Order: sequence, then structure tokens, then C-alpha cells
Amino acid sequence: MLIDGLERRTIWPDPEGAGIFILDQTRLPHVLSSVLMRDLDDAARAIRDMLVRGAPLIGVTAAYGVALAMRDDASDEGLRHAAKKLGSTRPTAVNLQWALSRMTGFLSGTPEGSRPGAALAMAGKMAAEDVACNEAIGEYGLQLIRAARDKRGGGPVRILTHCNAGWLATVDWGTATAPIYKAQAAGLEVHVFVDETRPRNQGASLTAFELGQQGVPHTLIVDNAGGHLMQQGEVDLVIVGADRIAGNGDACNKIGTYLKALAARDCGIPFYVAAPVSTFDASLAEGKLIPIEERAQEEVTHISGATAGGEVVNVRIAPKDTPARNPAFDVTPARLVSGIITEKGVFDANADALASLLKA
Amino acid sequence: MLIDGLERRTIWPDPEGAGIFILDQTRLPHVLSSVLMRDLDDAARAIRDMLVRGAPLIGVTAAYGVALAMRDDASDEGLRHAAKKLGSTRPTAVNLQWALSRMTGFLSGTPEGSRPGAALAMAGKMAAEDVACNEAIGEYGLQLIRAARDKRGGGPVRILTHCNAGWLATVDWGTATAPIYKAQAAGLEVHVFVDETRPRNQGASLTAFELGQQGVPHTLIVDNAGGHLMQQGEVDLVIVGADRIAGNGDACNKIGTYLKALAARDCGIPFYVAAPVSTFDASLAEGKLIPIEERAQEEVTHISGATAGGEVVNVRIAPKDTPARNPAFDVTPARLVSGIITEKGVFDANADALASLLKA
Repeated sequence: MLIDGLERRTIWPDPEGAGIFILDQTRLPHVLSSVLMRDLDDAARAIRDMLVRGAPLIGVTAAYGVALAMRDDASDEGLRHAAKKLGSTRPTAVNLQWALSRMTGFLSGTPEGSRPGAALAMAGKMAAEDVACNEAIGEYGLQLIRAARDKRGGGPVRILTHCNAGWLATVDWGTATAPIYKAQAAGLEVHVFVDETRPRNQGASLTAFELGQQGVPHTLIVDNAGGHLMQQGEVDLVIVGADRIAGNGDACNKIGTYLKALAARDCGIPFYVAAPVSTFDASLAEGKLIPIEERAQEEVTHISGATAGGEVVNVRIAPKDTPARNPAFDVTPARLVSGIITEKGVFDANADALASLLKA
Repeated sequence: MLIDGLERRTIWPDPEGAGIFILDQTRLPHVLSSVLMRDLDDAARAIRDMLVRGAPLIGVTAAYGVALAMRDDASDEGLRHAAKKLGSTRPTAVNLQWALSRMTGFLSGTPEGSRPGAALAMAGKMAAEDVACNEAIGEYGLQLIRAARDKRGGGPVRILTHCNAGWLATVDWGTATAPIYKAQAAGLEVHVFVDETRPRNQGASLTAFELGQQGVPHTLIVDNAGGHLMQQGEVDLVIVGADRIAGNGDACNKIGTYLKALAARDCGIPFYVAAPVSTFDASLAEGKLIPIEERAQEEVTHISGATAGGEVVNVRIAPKDTPARNPAFDVTPARLVSGIITEKGVFDANADALASLLKA
């Protein structure tokens, strides 16, 4: 999608082979900068320190991370080491494990000498698949936006989203935003309410940024405000992403998603989860089995922003030494989910529907 | 309550008669400073710019504001002007209108020459009543905390609160915090989860501050995290304040309260509103009639904090020119409220119970 009017992606190989470029998402929206990952350590650090984030992009970055590792050590031991190191960076997103399994499965059957090139090609294929997958999610989701427009009658379809399940969370298009960008392309009027998404503010820094760059009308709100807007009849549809979906349809996503799902249900507003099939973890019967990452207290007690002079500074917003808790995700029970938008269609959030999806 | 080990209040007359002192709450927790209000304009500004905030404290400040106005113009016209000016500062808190009606009613029957002294005495009486009222709320709320302890069996009673309905929102003790301070005084172990309460972060800046100063164990969380903690069984009780309560028990409080009430209901956790009887507005049949203040976009797009060097700076946390919405309150439907803790006892949130409360 567009940044400064130019088509960009979140991750791309250096044409001269020096490594893999990513956008440093920790510096957005204040500074646009790309970072070259040269080896396995760089890739692990990029995921752990959230230079890249979003379940699909984490998966593709891990795949490229394996490819970078193969350049330095293409042995079976090197492959095991890479998968282990990358696999321990973030516990919640299942796409990470999915991408690593796929890479190791593929490379196990590849002669050591061919592994560096084959790994790079495979990671590139997975990146291309992510783009196609998100476009398909966009087309299926577009039908839901059309339905919301028909129901509303007139005016833009008002969509609330939480965190960034936008193109910056994927290689391109995004998951929750793909239907929005497809609607824009189809000339269907939308307006997006963007939850700021404390503590890391991916909504304010990333979703507002990408929608603004793409020219999609939007309004930033604090996480507290979405319920009130729903009560006031100002939201037609909620679409969020997911980091892992259990076999019964319970959806794990950025902390706070559960609260919006409760409000949508209370106000009779459809609540959809948009996610590729790789987000499903059939090995977990229900959401409470999904491990929830607890992150550093400083993400709660401190925040970064730009001064009037443009300098980006980190400031403390709580009394000194205030103890904080920072669970990064929560689980929305399947009973609150109107449907799951995948690249294979929109499925009900229950074990039977998801079993048929995984067979489709 | 305590700041730096000394007993403080949020508002007090200058012993030498220069005016009325308040704590400047916009500078907490980084800077502790008091401001002298010398006239009506100072008082109106203090309320509008939120140097003082919290429905009960707004009411008492308005009362003192009328007293300051009487020093300069004790005529009927002066009284009308003061009530009008102070009444237009914040639209949602009903205590403001309640305090102004009480002052004007009282002063209308007072000879002009006696008004300055009488007004000051009356404002002082209202401040003292606020303290006594909150202590009574504390005693009634303490019984609910005891019940939660008995239900839990062992360990501290874990209470979640939103925004600051603490002693800083009143003259002393607070509303939602009064039961907590009473529990502490009674040797009953509590642990408070403090919602940071975006956009103005009264939880992080004020509630965490006052609990810390008072030595009450607490943990700061982002507004998004409360639902997850409730799902995990880590919250025994929710207590929040209110800015206005309609005749049917619908409770208007800081934006985001509704989301916590939904989560408490979904998780089977008691959700209580603590508020003085002056918060009830029997003239409004239901919560949707309560006017909701919309505040400046900059409260969403910018935030203040302290740098490592201790300087307090305002930083932008969204892309430049991002449009924002900033509704300051929401309405929690009475059906989600387990009870309302008042100075006259704990009442059900329904029209019959509240009618009997107002007669009590």
C-alpha cells in the first residue's frame, strides 16, 4: 500500500543480496526508516523488539530469518538452532510456529548445499502467499461491508478496528484492513474508528498512519471510547485481527479486543475476526489454553511521542516506581464472534465450521 | 489523606483570607503544587481546565467560587452571573448544578451585606459535608469488601477501579476509594488494579499517586487489560465513581466505565458505583438523556509525561493532523450495576430503590 504516495511493502529482499529489509515499525509514525537484517540474530531481534509485529508479518519475517540463518550455517544443526531461536521470540502468535514448521519441513528435504537459495525462495513464496491471502480476505470482507451499507441505507459504513491488523501487520493489504481497502477501491464509502490500542498504541501510530497514507477517512479514539460510540449507534461493524484462534473459535488478539466484542454484542453490532487460516491452532481445544505474553512494565508506565520540535522522546506517565501489569493479548470467546473472515471464506466461530474450514 | 506523609485536602481556604487554595491536579504526579484562586474567574478556570476534577470536588470548588464572587459583587446580579459562569464550565457532572443551586438558594435569603461571609461559611460547610459523606460511603463499601474477602477465602481482595474517584476527586477520602481506605484502616488486605484511564490518564496520574502515597498495594494496568484480568479470575470486585446517575439507575462516569461493567457482568464479578446522593439527577428518567461532554482532540493525540531528566513535556502520539473524537463520559446501563454505594447505604440501581433513597 501507499506511503508518501509510493507503493510499499513491510518486508523485501535487498536486490543486491545483502539481506532482508524491513520497515522499523517502532519508529512510526514519527520516523519512516527501513532496517537491513543481515543474519539470524537480526531477524530474532526484529521480532522480539517488535520492529516487525502482527501475526502474519511475524511469520514471514521468521521465514526470512531462517533463510538468513541458512547463509551462515545450512546444516541440520543450523536449521534446528534457527527455528528454536526464532520460535522463542514471541509466544502468542501461532503463525510464527506455523512459518517455522513449514520452513524446517521444506528444508529438511533439501540438500544442504541448496538450502540457502531454496530457503530464500520459499520465504519469498510465503510472502507472496500472504499478499494473495490478504486480498482474498479483503474480497470476502468486502461482502460484509456491502451488507452493512445495505442495512444502514445511506452514508459511509462505520467500522471500528482495534490495534493494527493493517497492511503493516502483514506483507501487504492487512487482514482486518483488507476489506476496508477493497471497499475503498470499489468506491464504497467507509469511515474507520481507530482504537489507539494502549500500551503500544499500534492503532494511533500504525493504523491511523496507514489509513491516512492511503486516504481512507478515519477518526482516532481512545480504547475507552468504542463502547460509547457503539451505544450511540455510530458503529456499523467491528473488524479485528487475531494472533491465534483455538479449535472452538475462541480468538486471541491484542489486549482489549474482548471488551469491544462485549460492547458489540451488547449493542447488536456484528463483530468479525479477519485472519488467515494459518492463524488457526487446531491443537488447542479452547482459547484459555493459548499462552498470553506478559510484556515489560515500562510499556505501561512510559510512552514515546514527538515534541513540538519533532524530537521523539520517551516520557513517564505514572508516578515513579508504580508497579504495572502488561498482558499483551486477551481471548474473545467464540460466542461473541459473528464470524471469521479467512482467505477461504467467512466461517462461523465454532468447532464444526472450523473443522470444515481446515479441510477446505 | 497523605501526601509525603502529611494529611492534605484538595481544597482549603487561605488562613489569611487571600482566597481558596487547590492542588493543581493537571501537574500530578510529576509536580505537587497548590494554586490560589482569588476570584470567580480563577474558580471557573480551575474547573474548566481541570485543575480540579471529579464530580464532588467540582461541586465544592463551585461553591467556593460563588463565595469568591460574593467578595467582589454580592448583588443579586453578581450571584446570577457567578452561577451562570460556573455552571457552564463542565456539562456532565450534576454535582456542579447541585452545589450552585444550593449556594444560590441559600444566598438569595441572605442580606447582601452578609453574603460574602455567609457564602464562605456555606462553602466550608459543604466541604465538611463532602468529607463526612465520603466516610459514610467508605463504611458501607467496607461491608462489600468484607463480603468479597469472605467469598474469596484468603489473600487480598482484588478491586478494580477506573479513573480517579479517589480523594483527589473529592475534598477527602474519595468515593470509590473510601471503602479501600477504610479497609486499609481496618487491617483488611486489599490490592487495587488501577485503570490508567485514557485520554487524561487520571488513573495513572492520580489514583496510582494517591494509593502509593497512602501505602495501598496497587498495580497500574492499561484500560484494555481489565477484561482479561477478570476472565483470569484476578478481580474480586469493581468499584467506580459516577458523575451523574439518572432516575432509573443508569450511571454516567468516565469514558470506558461501560466496558468494564460489561466485562464484570460477563465474568460474574460484582460491579458497584460509589457516589454521594448529590450525584442523582431525578429529573432525568434514563441515562441516555445525560449530556456527554466532548473534549479537545489534543487530549487524544497528545500526552504529557516526565522525561528522564524530570522535565514535563507534551508529546504527539499520533500522525500529524490525525482527526480524533474525545467523548469524556459514557453511560453504564443500570442492568449492569450490582448496587450504588451512597452515604445513606447501598441501593439497587432501579427507579424504585432510588426513589426511596432520595426520600431517605
